[in-house]
Amino acid sequence: MKKLLFVLFLLPGISLAQNHEENIQSIFNLELTKGHTYENLRYLCKDIGHRLSGSPQAAAAVEYTRQLMESYGFDTVYLQPVMVPHWVRGGKDEVKIVNSEKLGTVDLQALALGNTQGTGPSGLVGEVVEVQGLEGLRALAEGAKGKIVFYNQPMDPTKVNTFQAYSGAVGQRGSGAAEASKYGAIGVIVRSMSNRIDHIPHTGNQRYNPDFPEIPSLAISTQDAELLSDLLKEQSDLKVFLKSQGEMRGQVLSYNVIGEIRGTERPDEIIAVGGHLDSWDVGEGAHDDGAGCMQAIEVLRIYKELGWKPKRTIRAVMWMNEENGLMGGREYARVAKEKGEKHIAAIESDSGGFLPIGFSSTGTESQRSKLASWRDYFTPYNIWKLDVPGGGADIGPLRDQGPILIGLHPDSQRYFIYHHTAADVFEAVDQRELELGAAAMTALVYLIEQEGI
Amino acid sequence: MKKLLFVLFLLPGISLAQNHEENIQSIFNLELTKGHTYENLRYLCKDIGHRLSGSPQAAAAVEYTRQLMESYGFDTVYLQPVMVPHWVRGGKDEVKIVNSEKLGTVDLQALALGNTQGTGPSGLVGEVVEVQGLEGLRALAEGAKGKIVFYNQPMDPTKVNTFQAYSGAVGQRGSGAAEASKYGAIGVIVRSMSNRIDHIPHTGNQRYNPDFPEIPSLAISTQDAELLSDLLKEQSDLKVFLKSQGEMRGQVLSYNVIGEIRGTERPDEIIAVGGHLDSWDVGEGAHDDGAGCMQAIEVLRIYKELGWKPKRTIRAVMWMNEENGLMGGREYARVAKEKGEKHIAAIESDSGGFLPIGFSSTGTESQRSKLASWRDYFTPYNIWKLDVPGGGADIGPLRDQGPILIGLHPDSQRYFIYHHTAADVFEAVDQRELELGAAAMTALVYLIEQEGI
Repeated sequence: MKKLLFVLFLLPGISLAQNHEENIQSIFNLELTKGHTYENLRYLCKDIGHRLSGSPQAAAAVEYTRQLMESYGFDTVYLQPVMVPHWVRGGKDEVKIVNSEKLGTVDLQALALGNTQGTGPSGLVGEVVEVQGLEGLRALAEGAKGKIVFYNQPMDPTKVNTFQAYSGAVGQRGSGAAEASKYGAIGVIVRSMSNRIDHIPHTGNQRYNPDFPEIPSLAISTQDAELLSDLLKEQSDLKVFLKSQGEMRGQVLSYNVIGEIRGTERPDEIIAVGGHLDSWDVGEGAHDDGAGCMQAIEVLRIYKELGWKPKRTIRAVMWMNEENGLMGGREYARVAKEKGEKHIAAIESDSGGFLPIGFSSTGTESQRSKLASWRDYFTPYNIWKLDVPGGGADIGPLRDQGPILIGLHPDSQRYFIYHHTAADVFEAVDQRELELGAAAMTALVYLIEQEGI
Repeated sequence: MKKLLFVLFLLPGISLAQNHEENIQSIFNLELTKGHTYENLRYLCKDIGHRLSGSPQAAAAVEYTRQLMESYGFDTVYLQPVMVPHWVRGGKDEVKIVNSEKLGTVDLQALALGNTQGTGPSGLVGEVVEVQGLEGLRALAEGAKGKIVFYNQPMDPTKVNTFQAYSGAVGQRGSGAAEASKYGAIGVIVRSMSNRIDHIPHTGNQRYNPDFPEIPSLAISTQDAELLSDLLKEQSDLKVFLKSQGEMRGQVLSYNVIGEIRGTERPDEIIAVGGHLDSWDVGEGAHDDGAGCMQAIEVLRIYKELGWKPKRTIRAVMWMNEENGLMGGREYARVAKEKGEKHIAAIESDSGGFLPIGFSSTGTESQRSKLASWRDYFTPYNIWKLDVPGGGADIGPLRDQGPILIGLHPDSQRYFIYHHTAADVFEAVDQRELELGAAAMTALVYLIEQEGI
């Protein structure tokens, strides 16, 4: 039976519609027995490592994924040039309490936020004032003048979808410096975006307001945020020393990396599936987002290994610069429009290589209903939530070109342990969870290339 | 509103039926913000450690959980005596290839299986013959005579529920020695029950056939199983040295530990919720089954912290000796019958402290339909599979007394990395996953004590 099917696949024009369950089973079985995703991720993490936009490692990751897709014999593999910001951390970040009556001098675990302008080599010292998120700052207002603002809003632990807790608190990280600067603050400390109390600082993007001074902005670990907050309750004139050597070095040339298998029946209808190749400059960018990149490549590789030819064109895309600029996602959409390409779906995996439980999406009622109608194909694999609102950062710019935007939706309990930290390494990824995600994406791509959406 | 509800709970006879969603939300919120499960598990794992039946640590775990439940002010806390087998490993286990033409002498990562009778201090040497599971042995039959049988059937990686893969392969571990001994084998090596290729040996129970010699039975890591298999393909006269100092020391007195909150309306209807307190004698028994025990205690603690009084009696049970005898589960059922107790439900968590995705159950059509009808209460917490067949080992003996048997059903991708190994330690447990499991069990107990089943 298996052999017969295989022969059928090689005959052009034979519909597989009646065999969706069986073909999806073939996808999962192949991935769980002979998948490449995990070993490819190992190489990306261990032999290249972290890869912030503009870094040598980002260039290595471009070349690695290009060669990898070439080696798999995809129909086309090419680089799409894109200018990206080149920020460098420049050295060890420091946050230090300098005048605690109780503890004296206390070093805190710190990481400058991305795109932060450094303090210069001598650092700066200032009195600390604690606020709960951006709302707290607005209440403090002029009280921030001359101070170091300490944003200490925790992620809400009662949100089962931890991305909702992240969304609820991340404003203080993204805009904390810009907003505090308006009131004359001289620096910013931000509680790490984590739902655990531990010693690991989490970096992440922040954006200045060009009309106000670019003050330094550093994250401290949740454990140290609790400590600092406790000490402030007893001693309100607590002073902190900040040092960061962050520097924005302008724009450099980088690339989106694209591999494609042309459709046999409707080659002009494109299904893009991808992740972002850049990562922060700590750890190995394993969950964020090496996992998504390797899963996307695996989608096309599975087609090659099974000898399947898709009706519509399927394209793996490694977007560059999701973390601190989104230039890759924007350029990809711009070029697609310029070329008159027709994307019918864009799928992104950028929520970590964890257990897949569904797909999030943004699209028309009809597109989203069609997606939801495929639920029974996925429940045998414990993937059951096909109606989550969402999508992905890199595919967002494609929205006005009409494709449904879909995000792989894994369980999120463990994501914010690792997100943007030195702990986001290969060993933090479970092989089976990663593979189930790759297979889920492949099954979804399969249904879309067969049935349209 | 919260305060009003709180007052209502204290008034006897007020039904909460209309507030199930809200009360379940209170359970999850409490557990995710101020749960004790994780810190209690830390103590059990780090301050007591592994706790094989009959060991000093098992006695310590009995006393710890007794004191813990006392400290929470449950209505009744007591020990239920039970005689348990006392097996000791006795020393370092060894499996060594002694005559490889290619590699010479090779030490393999090994752990004697539980209840194994040792080789004596000088060990034994024999030729190895590889088979695929018990079927392979039956095909080999007399060919096993005088040999060391090497069972090398892997777990099937295509099973998304890895317990199914375990069930498919574990016969060779449980009965491998007994069956091989019938054909005159002198010892047994078993591939570890793991779905990863790594260097960690997994122990587990095995049972001798009293009519045949008690031959030694040792597990080797999956990596070493692959190596041994590869070497055997090139050299069929490969010899292996086995050494184990395992010894069964008869029966000793131990206890099930029981804590109870009496029902206000139907105190004679009992809902038991528990895990097993014993573990294997390596690692810390964190997932197996410290997690389940601490979750069960948390169910009752949440009632105390919320100031709730259940309509029916709820009882946390730490069963002793699930791993190598099931004496605790059997004794619990025997005493319940003797006392004429009426269990309406027995719930066990013994599939690890991982992300809960549902409940498995065994019961009447009516009981199982009622359970399934509560699905919408759980889906907000991503718990959605309420119709999985199953239950739990310790609650099995209660079956003929009529309660529905229910197992917490977590995702199983990572369970067999840790199961019965030195790696099953506290650090392998994720706090949020563990807490979601505790909250899920509490919500289920809540629905049953309110609505019956």
